[in-house]
Amino acid sequence: MPTGVQNRQIVLKSYPAGMPTGANFAMIESPVPEPGDHEVLTRALWLSLDPYMRGRMSDRKSYAPSVPLEDVMVARTVSRVVLSRDSRFVPGDIVVAPGGWQDYAALPAASLRKLDPALAPVSTALGVLGMPGMTAYVGLLDIGRPRASDTVVVSAASGAVGSVVGQIARLKGCRVVGVAGGAAKCRYVVDELGFDTCVDHRAAGLGDALALACPNGIDVYFENVDGIVQQAVWPLLNDFARVPVCGLIAQYNDAEPRPGPSLASVLTKRLTVRGFIVSDYGDRWDEFFRDMSAWVSEGRIKYREDVVEGLEHAPEAFIGLLQGRNFGKLLVRVARE
Amino acid sequence: MPTGVQNRQIVLKSYPAGMPTGANFAMIESPVPEPGDHEVLTRALWLSLDPYMRGRMSDRKSYAPSVPLEDVMVARTVSRVVLSRDSRFVPGDIVVAPGGWQDYAALPAASLRKLDPALAPVSTALGVLGMPGMTAYVGLLDIGRPRASDTVVVSAASGAVGSVVGQIARLKGCRVVGVAGGAAKCRYVVDELGFDTCVDHRAAGLGDALALACPNGIDVYFENVDGIVQQAVWPLLNDFARVPVCGLIAQYNDAEPRPGPSLASVLTKRLTVRGFIVSDYGDRWDEFFRDMSAWVSEGRIKYREDVVEGLEHAPEAFIGLLQGRNFGKLLVRVARE
Repeated sequence: MPTGVQNRQIVLKSYPAGMPTGANFAMIESPVPEPGDHEVLTRALWLSLDPYMRGRMSDRKSYAPSVPLEDVMVARTVSRVVLSRDSRFVPGDIVVAPGGWQDYAALPAASLRKLDPALAPVSTALGVLGMPGMTAYVGLLDIGRPRASDTVVVSAASGAVGSVVGQIARLKGCRVVGVAGGAAKCRYVVDELGFDTCVDHRAAGLGDALALACPNGIDVYFENVDGIVQQAVWPLLNDFARVPVCGLIAQYNDAEPRPGPSLASVLTKRLTVRGFIVSDYGDRWDEFFRDMSAWVSEGRIKYREDVVEGLEHAPEAFIGLLQGRNFGKLLVRVARE
Repeated sequence: MPTGVQNRQIVLKSYPAGMPTGANFAMIESPVPEPGDHEVLTRALWLSLDPYMRGRMSDRKSYAPSVPLEDVMVARTVSRVVLSRDSRFVPGDIVVAPGGWQDYAALPAASLRKLDPALAPVSTALGVLGMPGMTAYVGLLDIGRPRASDTVVVSAASGAVGSVVGQIARLKGCRVVGVAGGAAKCRYVVDELGFDTCVDHRAAGLGDALALACPNGIDVYFENVDGIVQQAVWPLLNDFARVPVCGLIAQYNDAEPRPGPSLASVLTKRLTVRGFIVSDYGDRWDEFFRDMSAWVSEGRIKYREDVVEGLEHAPEAFIGLLQGRNFGKLLVRVARE
């Protein structure tokens, strides 16, 4: 480590009320940390920005602890090992790490997973071959349980999770209908990803458009958003439909949780509405990774990355994500590989 | 059939707005019907009154068709065969039948199930050994999936379904907390049925009382009622809790379905909220009947019947059911066995 190098860190200054703003974050500089025994000093190359981070910027109870004020924002990164005090890693290794919004982190070796850069671009370890891809895989297959010729509706269809959900559903023989914001995303979902059709939730008449797109009703609704999309989907659900609840980005900035769909619909249609969090499915990792690696290398699953240059732009990129301004998996390039 | 015998029938005169009244029903007299080929003329002995019937008195779409105006109200009955035009039945046989709110019905033989009066009182075929018992069995075991030492909360705990749910959960080693209306029902649930405790939803402080009764949170909530009980339960649900949605009696008289609990709770707690209807579980009948017959004959599952005398009292008894005035499985004795 050259002397004089500082560690740039983005810390949480305040819990936002509603949509976060730049003022909720601050960039500070600190000394580069020293790794202890069985720790590794890592340098972030790619930083993953994901909607779940909004939940950490809150004192509202959720499934994971809040980020304390003045702490570095949490994130997964793809990082390079700079210095290792553990026999499993050597400088130059590329790893997936809980690196946070910062240049350098000293991390327990046990928290790192080594990547093989020959296998796939390493950034995919934050997307299609990482947490978002696995979220799509277990949520669709384990909870959605699609059968061939089912109609599967996917919200946030061009996003990191939704894009994979829809493509897996196509591989399983389903009719796949995306819901995305804007004509460009809808075109991409159909033309590039091979969904059967896609409905623009920003256009007027969402309910009618979705009904037209789903002439046989909806058997699986992969819920990423809540809000008007959920409301348009609900009347179209078939008896015995499954609703994996993966994300609710439309309500993440609300002060109070919104009421949900009526239990009367759950009863009369015998719906299964089930929340899940990918970290509960560690035992499915090997199967996911084997399947998804094959699908990606065969070109059967495609992905798109939306790359923002520079750690200092992470806050505005994250705010854009909550507003649907990203197009594909949102990544910050923190340093060149 | 002696000449001059008429068939008393209770027909639906109008769809109620809100709580039904006597004016929604009328008793008429018609000729006793003639059974056709492979039909059986049956005489009702016991008529089952159940909350689901409120859903049939509505043009609101549900899982089953509405009762048309001027038609006889639907119901299961325990009936005696009077005349048979099918080789499987002879006069005197006791059967479970879709007999409706009337003295006589001519029914397809295939719709009847013969009872053995030596096995158990025949009225139990409408309760613990019939649809309500089976509802409890599949809802708790297949959807609730209780594990030993789970806390199971049962609403409408003294009712035909809830009483069986709680007793099965006790057999499976769970801590069982009932919710019922009034001190007498609560005492019965604990003293007679062996629930660990019971909370009175008519008393003040339901949320606090339930929290005290569930020091380890709630792993299974068997939903029969919705309303204030659901609202008190929800904050106490543990991660990965299961909510079989069986009935929603508190909202059956509403003009519009009520909003449900937030999808945010479903996501962050990874809840499984699942509606079910017993008629979808025909393939579980044999197992249910074997288990429940044994439990009842061994005295491990108890039941209580609330018997109303005379078909003419069915409407007011049904209205009382919607108000929680019954105490145990509500039956109308239409004729002596």
